[in-house]
Amino acid sequence: MDVIVPFAAHDPKTRLSDVLDPGERRAFARVMLADVLESIVAAGGTPHVLATRPLDHDLEALRDADPNSNRSFQSDLAGSLDSGLDVIVDDRDLTTAVNAAVATAFEGTDAFEPPVAVVMADLPLATPASLRRLLEADGEVVLAPGRGGGTNAFVSRDPSFRVDYHGVSIRDHRRNARSIGATLAEVDSRRLASDVDDREDLLEVLVHGERRAHEWLLEAGFEVATDGGDTTVVRSE
Amino acid sequence: MDVIVPFAAHDPKTRLSDVLDPGERRAFARVMLADVLESIVAAGGTPHVLATRPLDHDLEALRDADPNSNRSFQSDLAGSLDSGLDVIVDDRDLTTAVNAAVATAFEGTDAFEPPVAVVMADLPLATPASLRRLLEADGEVVLAPGRGGGTNAFVSRDPSFRVDYHGVSIRDHRRNARSIGATLAEVDSRRLASDVDDREDLLEVLVHGERRAHEWLLEAGFEVATDGGDTTVVRSE
Repeated sequence: MDVIVPFAAHDPKTRLSDVLDPGERRAFARVMLADVLESIVAAGGTPHVLATRPLDHDLEALRDADPNSNRSFQSDLAGSLDSGLDVIVDDRDLTTAVNAAVATAFEGTDAFEPPVAVVMADLPLATPASLRRLLEADGEVVLAPGRGGGTNAFVSRDPSFRVDYHGVSIRDHRRNARSIGATLAEVDSRRLASDVDDREDLLEVLVHGERRAHEWLLEAGFEVATDGGDTTVVRSE
Repeated sequence: MDVIVPFAAHDPKTRLSDVLDPGERRAFARVMLADVLESIVAAGGTPHVLATRPLDHDLEALRDADPNSNRSFQSDLAGSLDSGLDVIVDDRDLTTAVNAAVATAFEGTDAFEPPVAVVMADLPLATPASLRRLLEADGEVVLAPGRGGGTNAFVSRDPSFRVDYHGVSIRDHRRNARSIGATLAEVDSRRLASDVDDREDLLEVLVHGERRAHEWLLEAGFEVATDGGDTTVVRSE
């Protein structure tokens, strides 16, 4: 299945500004993207990055900003991204860009054909198994809710299904699916629900991650601290 | 399968003190418990409440404190809890009480026999389907992680598996399972991961709940508010 992965290449993850500088946020966002792309491929999907600007633009920033100067990791990342990955550039807002890309898929092109999935780029806990549950679920519209009322991923088999990421999007998407008479299913996955937006979310990556994003956080000095009953994320200097 | 449900009957859910008074917290905790018990039965399990004091003690408090004076709801709740439910009273700390109850199950009694599951009482989003995935998963130890490094539910088929709920318990439980040579599995469920501890967690119940706890929050005046990009829970007076 074709899987669209929206990616904010410019100034991503602003809610991590208290623990990561702008260059680090760009690097970490890209590392999470690489994890997601790898899992999509392993789940049998064909990823298409829907980026706000060309990725090679960002790659230079990444080389400058990597806090650990881990060159082999960077080469690995660049290699995985350069190997024939389709990148669509659309600098419009997320809702507009996703709806346009989904519509293109249903028109049928050389690059795209329905059904189509959309998976967010900030899901470093997404495993091939969790993504297979999404891609293989029955339903004309299949939603994977995110924590906080969001929609972290979906599959659409109905050309008239549209998204709106403002507000409590999962409610709107349920309503949109019903309004077009599409059969609706939801995937009950903690891994797909765990989008990484703020410091608290980093705890999930540290405790449950096993790949690039997890390794990146460890190399950047992040660790889990327990102080009495409280569990927090701290960063060593 | 026998399913132990630990329940803190006295002063539960203290992290909800900013939005619920003590009587409301007791009532809401009990409503969540009722949702969990009902789902366990529907999933084919036999629940045993492991309470810090007798439930009827608490029931009086509930009658006094219900903010909505919804008598039929209370009767319904009392009825569902009185219908032959096994209640084990153990006022020791959670870790000690759970380990003792699990050990009893492996000794084999009239009430209990292995394998045994433990499911927390503050999981109002747990559905029969999500619990069936837990109960039916292969593995001598099956863990359902909670958000924040916790362990919201598990199944044990190994008499020597023990728990420790302090700190980042999911890590300790993985380690404990490995140290006794047990095969380990994890259930990837957002619903089982969503324990309700603080105000932010109420959002999940409002957006994804469909039963008593959801209804209780609505009747108590809680709703989701979106202000700009932020989604929060508010309570009307």
